Amino acid sequence: MYKNTLRKAAHTWKRIIKLRLSEQEASMLRFYVDELAFTDLHWGMFIPAIKGQGMEQRQQKWLPLAYKMQLIRCYAQTELGHGSNVQGLETTATFDPKSDEFIMNSPTLTSSKWWPGGLGKASTHGVVYARRLVDGKDHGVNGFIVQLQSFDDHSPLPGITVADIGMKFGNGAYNTMDNGVLRFDHVRIPRDQMLMRVSQVTREGKYVQSDVPRQLFYGTMVYVRQTIVANASCASSRAVCIATRYSAVRRQFGSQDDGPETQVIDYKTQQNKLFPLVVTAYAYRFVGEWLKWLYTDVTQRLQANDFSTLPEAHACTAGLKSLTTSTTADAIEECRKLCSGHGYLCSSGLPELFVVYVPACTYEGDNVVLLLQVARFLMKTVSQLGSGKQLVGTTACMGRVEHLLQCCSDVQQAEDWLKPTAILEAFEARAARMSVAYARNISKMPSQEEGFAELFSDVVETAVAHCQLIVVSKFIEKLKQGIPGKGVKEQLQILCNIYALFLLHKHQGEFLATGAITLKQASLASDQLRVLYAQACPNAIALVDAFNYTDHYLGSVLGRYDGNVYPNLYPKAWEEPLNDTVVPDGYHEYIRPMLKQQLRTVRL
Amino acid sequence: MYKNTLRKAAHTWKRIIKLRLSEQEASMLRFYVDELAFTDLHWGMFIPAIKGQGMEQRQQKWLPLAYKMQLIRCYAQTELGHGSNVQGLETTATFDPKSDEFIMNSPTLTSSKWWPGGLGKASTHGVVYARRLVDGKDHGVNGFIVQLQSFDDHSPLPGITVADIGMKFGNGAYNTMDNGVLRFDHVRIPRDQMLMRVSQVTREGKYVQSDVPRQLFYGTMVYVRQTIVANASCASSRAVCIATRYSAVRRQFGSQDDGPETQVIDYKTQQNKLFPLVVTAYAYRFVGEWLKWLYTDVTQRLQANDFSTLPEAHACTAGLKSLTTSTTADAIEECRKLCSGHGYLCSSGLPELFVVYVPACTYEGDNVVLLLQVARFLMKTVSQLGSGKQLVGTTACMGRVEHLLQCCSDVQQAEDWLKPTAILEAFEARAARMSVAYARNISKMPSQEEGFAELFSDVVETAVAHCQLIVVSKFIEKLKQGIPGKGVKEQLQILCNIYALFLLHKHQGEFLATGAITLKQASLASDQLRVLYAQACPNAIALVDAFNYTDHYLGSVLGRYDGNVYPNLYPKAWEEPLNDTVVPDGYHEYIRPMLKQQLRTVRL
Repeated sequence: MYKNTLRKAAHTWKRIIKLRLSEQEASMLRFYVDELAFTDLHWGMFIPAIKGQGMEQRQQKWLPLAYKMQLIRCYAQTELGHGSNVQGLETTATFDPKSDEFIMNSPTLTSSKWWPGGLGKASTHGVVYARRLVDGKDHGVNGFIVQLQSFDDHSPLPGITVADIGMKFGNGAYNTMDNGVLRFDHVRIPRDQMLMRVSQVTREGKYVQSDVPRQLFYGTMVYVRQTIVANASCASSRAVCIATRYSAVRRQFGSQDDGPETQVIDYKTQQNKLFPLVVTAYAYRFVGEWLKWLYTDVTQRLQANDFSTLPEAHACTAGLKSLTTSTTADAIEECRKLCSGHGYLCSSGLPELFVVYVPACTYEGDNVVLLLQVARFLMKTVSQLGSGKQLVGTTACMGRVEHLLQCCSDVQQAEDWLKPTAILEAFEARAARMSVAYARNISKMPSQEEGFAELFSDVVETAVAHCQLIVVSKFIEKLKQGIPGKGVKEQLQILCNIYALFLLHKHQGEFLATGAITLKQASLASDQLRVLYAQACPNAIALVDAFNYTDHYLGSVLGRYDGNVYPNLYPKAWEEPLNDTVVPDGYHEYIRPMLKQQLRTVRL
Repeated sequence: MYKNTLRKAAHTWKRIIKLRLSEQEASMLRFYVDELAFTDLHWGMFIPAIKGQGMEQRQQKWLPLAYKMQLIRCYAQTELGHGSNVQGLETTATFDPKSDEFIMNSPTLTSSKWWPGGLGKASTHGVVYARRLVDGKDHGVNGFIVQLQSFDDHSPLPGITVADIGMKFGNGAYNTMDNGVLRFDHVRIPRDQMLMRVSQVTREGKYVQSDVPRQLFYGTMVYVRQTIVANASCASSRAVCIATRYSAVRRQFGSQDDGPETQVIDYKTQQNKLFPLVVTAYAYRFVGEWLKWLYTDVTQRLQANDFSTLPEAHACTAGLKSLTTSTTADAIEECRKLCSGHGYLCSSGLPELFVVYVPACTYEGDNVVLLLQVARFLMKTVSQLGSGKQLVGTTACMGRVEHLLQCCSDVQQAEDWLKPTAILEAFEARAARMSVAYARNISKMPSQEEGFAELFSDVVETAVAHCQLIVVSKFIEKLKQGIPGKGVKEQLQILCNIYALFLLHKHQGEFLATGAITLKQASLASDQLRVLYAQACPNAIALVDAFNYTDHYLGSVLGRYDGNVYPNLYPKAWEEPLNDTVVPDGYHEYIRPMLKQQLRTVRL
């Protein structure tokens, strides 16, 4: 499997050269190869790290080599004992002023680098994160460019131990990637291989902070997380495309009069579970587009030294990364279950889609840790209310906090829930009231940290409420724009309403507890939701066809565009290597003796 | 992999013979082998089917052969196009009175048998479910014993096509099982190989119903589902054991003063997610024990021709099967995420535990379909209220429905939530009010079926509320008994309260919407829950150690009893075959040319 991945990566690279693809086109090509490979990290993490953290003269050395793939790189941050807490990393880089070198070392077992993709076998170099020890003082963690494997024969350089960390979840998924382990035994590297954009160590062994604003690095984080949100929409739309199409093919029960059974998609049971996932894929698509805009906006502001929107943008992308990846992982598994037994076959495409996706909940910030960041930001926002500090971005609605704490929804009949203003106000009121209540509860605690720890459950729910408000409001905003195509806008309007009312029903406890809506209004929302499902149903297939995936890319027999599922599922079985022979290997050794055994007495 | 499974099965069988194990002991041995094999179906499905549905004289022929494993059987019910709806099966068994034979045939592609475990390669025989066509009339679906493979060389008999259906989810899991596909091209079998306990076809081609009450077969269903609930507790307790132990080993963040980082288990964030899963494993253990009692009770009654408790027992086991398997599948995946990145390694044991478990949500009754059955039963119960019909089993509390519709919880401070009566009343009130409300809403619909379809969301929530009430009340009942061991009962009391209050918080929308509790009481429950988590924390490890799993059975480096995780995770990596060579296969072919390529210009 691994060799085959190397083959694909090499072939992809050949095409990139031959076709003279741009960086973005090359990235698209790799995206459609749709198999994890060491090149993902080389392009997606290593090059951005050099660009972001390297001094310009060093970039001139390393970037051309990387762009020509004359070296292969990984991003070696995570350690066996240290993940989320980067400041807790144990690998050391001790400066030796005599030789003008850093000495890379792995002082403990837990300091072994562990997980970096491409590290195990393919990489020649790594950006290795290590604690800088200069003149006996610890200057915290920084990146270093370290050569790992020889250019002669690809063997590890002296003092370096490197290997693959072994089998991972699933039968494909990350098993095509050589996630690796790396240990240093006093390995020397030139001083200038430290990435020095943020701080430098001089020839004399002096530690100097640069005047580059640290905020600049948050810009990169916004970028990476925006990509993750876009991928969430991509993964969930693939899953719902498969589940929706197969729901129209599969028939079970129904029809008393010996006609064909009922299409599964016509059951409300199926619609109730499937449609919220379809609309969520749409919602994440739009919030992903908006995040792309946000990144551009933040970047322009940073270039003009305007950091005012950065904390809000940072919190908001952290929260959306957490929300979208968690729900997408669950959605894929739910889609698999909605295909009933056949979803368990690899040929359904869903098992691997799930397994390859779930790490998104952990990497680039654990989803729980990220929600805590959002909550901290919300608490700060609440504490500054009335201080005259301007509220920006997604917290702007908190400027109307007095109103939001008191307002009563004017929904009186089910159709009133179709009004964007009614939806928005309910979501804003719920989020604002939860934020204010939780800030108040924390203020009663002996310390803010204790409050955070003690009230964790509230903290997380508040952060989620805020993030859901963002997604709902961006969906609504999208629909204020002109949308080409006859009737498209009307359909999207239905999806937007389903998304909002589905969330409202799912979290009705919070909407009720905060008084954002009344019992009667909650019940009306459920009524309206049923009407909306019925409206969405005739177009369900068109809605997933609109994602425009080819059968080849979708890789699912159940999700075929032509619906010709069973005639293709059946021959697929014969591709199983176990079917190469009629009688299985092991029959003569294990089965036959059992069958032919003449047992007089069995106690059974 | 498959051959290795055959090897294990043959070895297990040798031990069973050698040690003269009883049927139950043999079943325990297979349980601890802990790898799916064709023998599971032979013993778990085929033999019970013969026992339950075969005539006694036929049992005397087949059972000894099966018990001595002189034939290997599978249970061939599910078809490519037909799962949950057994009455929709398409395989035909046409009686030919001339030869006194049935002709087995697969008239369509979708009638191909698909999924039966052990069918693909190992089985010599199958119990095949097919429509009986007698004298041109369709008498519905029944089981037939059909020989599939030759005793000479294990090749398929004439007219029979049999094969494995191919790769399934995960890298182990059900891939050790030869789930198979089977097609018949007019295969003749003797008439007496039809299982005739329920109805017979005579030599003359007459169809005759037997006088065996059909209810008897529900007894088997209660048995099978009780086993599934017990397995849910087993699977979830394995997962929480791994996650809890590793949470005590893993450290992240914390400690300002350069001491070691904080144990993850000390974070409320972790406790909030982990502890509900631990207590759920306990709760399912107890409800599983109770179901075992229920099965005995039902069996005794059936023998005395007392069918009065059967509908309730049937609904209740259906609901508990659905509830426990759904939550357990989610719990295993949640435990994996709670182990952060390392949970994604196969050596954590969690990926395969998940993959091997999830089919439980689909087999033996799809979980959604089962909840609909519960809901139907509840609606019937509500419709009979006041009719004088006696309410039995878990619906007995509906006898106090007048009270439950009006009562107000008397909880006034957080500690009041520790009273079993307060908990029970809240859960009873919520379940009863939801049942009554939903019966009322359905009665407003044009027809009951339409109401069912239209109000699906309510239907499912009502069924879940009823099932949760059962689990909570059985936990409380358990604690009324004497429990040996100093302080054990007190600890279990804490777990019981956590279970109930966790559910109450999670579903607070329903408790509030039904008026079963007030806003203030919901908030007090959350307060009390936090106190309970703090009380449970010091004993968390002891609570999972109490499941008494050996390291060997647990199969998880992260979940080791001695907590010596990292020193064992590290060497485990070296078992990866990719590490057999330092330079990977494919380097010279694919990596080296890329590195050595002299590119003049790259557009990138």
